[in-house]
Amino acid sequence: MLLSEIADSLGLILQGNDIEVSGVNTLTDAGPEHVSFLANPKYTEQLQDSRAGAIITDKEHASAVPSAALISAHPYLDFARLVQMFAKPLGRFTGQSSQAVVHPQAVIHPSVVIAPFVYVGEGAHIGEGTRLFPGVHVGEDCRIGKHCTIYPRVTLMDRTRVGDNVILHAGVVLGSDGFGFAQAGQGLVKFPQIGCVVIEDNVEIGANTTIDRAALGETRIGKGTKIDNQVQIGHNVQVGENSIIVAQVGIAGSARLGKGVVLAGQVGVAGHLTIGDGCRVAAKGGIHSSVQPGTDLGGGMPSIEYKKYLKTVATIPKLPEMSKRLRRLEKEIDLLKKGCSAEKS
Amino acid sequence: MLLSEIADSLGLILQGNDIEVSGVNTLTDAGPEHVSFLANPKYTEQLQDSRAGAIITDKEHASAVPSAALISAHPYLDFARLVQMFAKPLGRFTGQSSQAVVHPQAVIHPSVVIAPFVYVGEGAHIGEGTRLFPGVHVGEDCRIGKHCTIYPRVTLMDRTRVGDNVILHAGVVLGSDGFGFAQAGQGLVKFPQIGCVVIEDNVEIGANTTIDRAALGETRIGKGTKIDNQVQIGHNVQVGENSIIVAQVGIAGSARLGKGVVLAGQVGVAGHLTIGDGCRVAAKGGIHSSVQPGTDLGGGMPSIEYKKYLKTVATIPKLPEMSKRLRRLEKEIDLLKKGCSAEKS
Amino acid sequence: MLLSEIADSLGLILQGNDIEVSGVNTLTDAGPEHVSFLANPKYTEQLQDSRAGAIITDKEHASAVPSAALISAHPYLDFARLVQMFAKPLGRFTGQSSQAVVHPQAVIHPSVVIAPFVYVGEGAHIGEGTRLFPGVHVGEDCRIGKHCTIYPRVTLMDRTRVGDNVILHAGVVLGSDGFGFAQAGQGLVKFPQIGCVVIEDNVEIGANTTIDRAALGETRIGKGTKIDNQVQIGHNVQVGENSIIVAQVGIAGSARLGKGVVLAGQVGVAGHLTIGDGCRVAAKGGIHSSVQPGTDLGGGMPSIEYKKYLKTVATIPKLPEMSKRLRRLEKEIDLLKKGCSAEKS
Repeated sequence: MLLSEIADSLGLILQGNDIEVSGVNTLTDAGPEHVSFLANPKYTEQLQDSRAGAIITDKEHASAVPSAALISAHPYLDFARLVQMFAKPLGRFTGQSSQAVVHPQAVIHPSVVIAPFVYVGEGAHIGEGTRLFPGVHVGEDCRIGKHCTIYPRVTLMDRTRVGDNVILHAGVVLGSDGFGFAQAGQGLVKFPQIGCVVIEDNVEIGANTTIDRAALGETRIGKGTKIDNQVQIGHNVQVGENSIIVAQVGIAGSARLGKGVVLAGQVGVAGHLTIGDGCRVAAKGGIHSSVQPGTDLGGGMPSIEYKKYLKTVATIPKLPEMSKRLRRLEKEIDLLKKGCSAEKS
Repeated sequence: MLLSEIADSLGLILQGNDIEVSGVNTLTDAGPEHVSFLANPKYTEQLQDSRAGAIITDKEHASAVPSAALISAHPYLDFARLVQMFAKPLGRFTGQSSQAVVHPQAVIHPSVVIAPFVYVGEGAHIGEGTRLFPGVHVGEDCRIGKHCTIYPRVTLMDRTRVGDNVILHAGVVLGSDGFGFAQAGQGLVKFPQIGCVVIEDNVEIGANTTIDRAALGETRIGKGTKIDNQVQIGHNVQVGENSIIVAQVGIAGSARLGKGVVLAGQVGVAGHLTIGDGCRVAAKGGIHSSVQPGTDLGGGMPSIEYKKYLKTVATIPKLPEMSKRLRRLEKEIDLLKKGCSAEKS
Repeated sequence: MLLSEIADSLGLILQGNDIEVSGVNTLTDAGPEHVSFLANPKYTEQLQDSRAGAIITDKEHASAVPSAALISAHPYLDFARLVQMFAKPLGRFTGQSSQAVVHPQAVIHPSVVIAPFVYVGEGAHIGEGTRLFPGVHVGEDCRIGKHCTIYPRVTLMDRTRVGDNVILHAGVVLGSDGFGFAQAGQGLVKFPQIGCVVIEDNVEIGANTTIDRAALGETRIGKGTKIDNQVQIGHNVQVGENSIIVAQVGIAGSARLGKGVVLAGQVGVAGHLTIGDGCRVAAKGGIHSSVQPGTDLGGGMPSIEYKKYLKTVATIPKLPEMSKRLRRLEKEIDLLKKGCSAEKS
């Protein structure tokens, strides 16, 4: 691909020679056949030693590029778009495998790719251009939209609904039973989970993440939301659009997250609460009560307002010393009080 | 189903017309064909607008029900039982698939349902009425009891023993190797894990949960215990009867939990300790030493007695301010001391 | 096996009769046909009641062994080696199943064992003596070395490279997409993850652990490193040799861990930082900035130097009381100040 073609396609300004390139790489690993990028100024010093054939960067840093520069207002975003142009999809099987089991009452678009060992149950619908990797399970009456990529061993339990352009990574489980029991005299009685899971368009869900079906009604993930690996989402949870949920987060039943919420890694959210639009919670946070829109939170148990958290966390290691100083003050006051009484008497 | 039939079956008192109903739903989503319930008084105000054909609730709230009421001493429990009457099992395949691989030396009750892509190894036994969903792996010499439901992609490694009426959700792994190594000069030497996993009757285990086989002997989950998704249970752990282990909990090797223990989400339990009967640990707790029966614990690292935790956690955000006040006091005392010496001199 | 054969094989000294034994067990469960061990002195009192035919222990405790003793400088290590002599591999299938799908362009050593429902894609290479359990997915162009054990449902996405003598437990996912998105006006744009995962020799990875492929370049796990169940490792992470990563740890993208690092259960490591050789982090720790080699850390958010953590954590529950004492001191100082002014006036 010529640099001028890339510039045209992404709306960038080419500075330097219009050479042919064949791939992308980091500043340190790129060769003359690669395009690289500089988005974070802290890596500026890597520019001069980079062997990249061209570098996408902003106007300010373009002059320091030793090779051709592709000038962009959003270098990271435009590099991501360029990588999309070079990336090849995973998996090279095609067609519908005779070693898959597809129920004759399932409705499958002819363009759907079905790898070996896929199971598609009665009443399932699968839309145009969707690809099912080996070992995918599509339970009875599931609906999957168009142009989805469903990687190996993903399990969609019965009646799960998935929109268009959804990516589900290996080992994802959608529609497992929510965790609901009623206490009876002789032990716990299962509350059957008869609701379902709905995944809206353009959602991506990471490897081995689990999303439980609703007890009654729906568990729903809003469009454009991105969920990382090993996240656990309980029954009847509602996640708004364009939220970001990082690895190993757990969200308990019936929690409601707004739009554009960001939960960093290993955060826990208790059940039956609301997290407003645009809230962000730092890694390992614990949310035990509802949060107003736009709030940033940090710290663990529970999380508190982020700036307060930064001050608090800096003080915690001083606690043992504070405790000592407190004891010393108490002694000194005792001495002063004795002094006072001595003077008075 | 007639309301009078439901009342008879569950031992409830019907107040109002004996209409026909066909399902269950929440107060807000139910229509005239549905039965709903009110168990938590904080939702009482939803009663008046509910279109439900009938509502299960207690004596106290029955008068506020706008439709028929089914009066119960335990509304949530009786609603759960009603849902069981309406719920249909997932999966509509039947029989034993020719696309499964079942070893001729495995002993399978003729009523067992075996979906495609199931593997059953030599020497395995599977009891009456058990259902194996697609892609289940039953390793050599496993024993599975009667009326179990084993959802897609569950892996039972060799010699795992599962009782009756057990439910294993998609992606569960039972009998993976425990994490045991001995330090040698050249690195770590594997301690082969030659024990097994035993799951007693009426246990339910959530999606993608992992339970390791014992190094020697058994890892055991007591009857009636319910385990949520993505829980990790180490080798040689013993969990007592009717315990509740919420999502993403981790229990390290050789820990012993009593009966009726409740571990909330993301709790961590260290190895080789004992948690007494009836202990409860709040979300994200860390248990680093043995706990007496009946203790409630909260807080993270490690968890402490629950009431103390509530007071402590309220104080933590005041730490930066406390630190300032401490410094001010020290200065004032210095001044007072100088004052005193000045007076004395 | 005769005790003298064991002694010869492991370089131990036999004290007592040279009897025949057929297995291994714990001190409490062993019978006369078993060898057991005593490594931790706190179990010394179990020696006298043990029915074990022989016990591996050190010189100091050998005299208290009621049966034959096998004297060792490293009893736990030598017992682990003995267990290796008795342990049988899991899985009794052999050969290459006709119910697997292996691409004709894949290069498979004739000794490789391929169970039913295995998928091996075009361009994959698998080395001598490696065993693939049912349902394993080997994506296009993967390379797997010699003598690996790959348990059921393991997923190796395309281009993953695995060394020799690697053990991957059930449900492991290698090479899922890293979590990378660029913010655009209309939402998040996927940064395609075109790198790969490299697992070096003698690594073991626990059940349902996930390791993401690099955005560009490699995610790499150094030789001899042992990873427990349900660990999440982000894109471009580098883990050094002989490290130990316990269950449910999460490591964010581009973090670099040195050699011999130990992360206990549920630790979280932020992205783009370096943890030096030999660092150890206690359970539930959170690492938010780089750590010098050889440092021990404890506590949650973030973790601090371990000895300081021990002191701090002991002070935290005293906080409510410290707060009260501080208030009392302030009042007393006010009184003293008034007293002083009164005296002066």
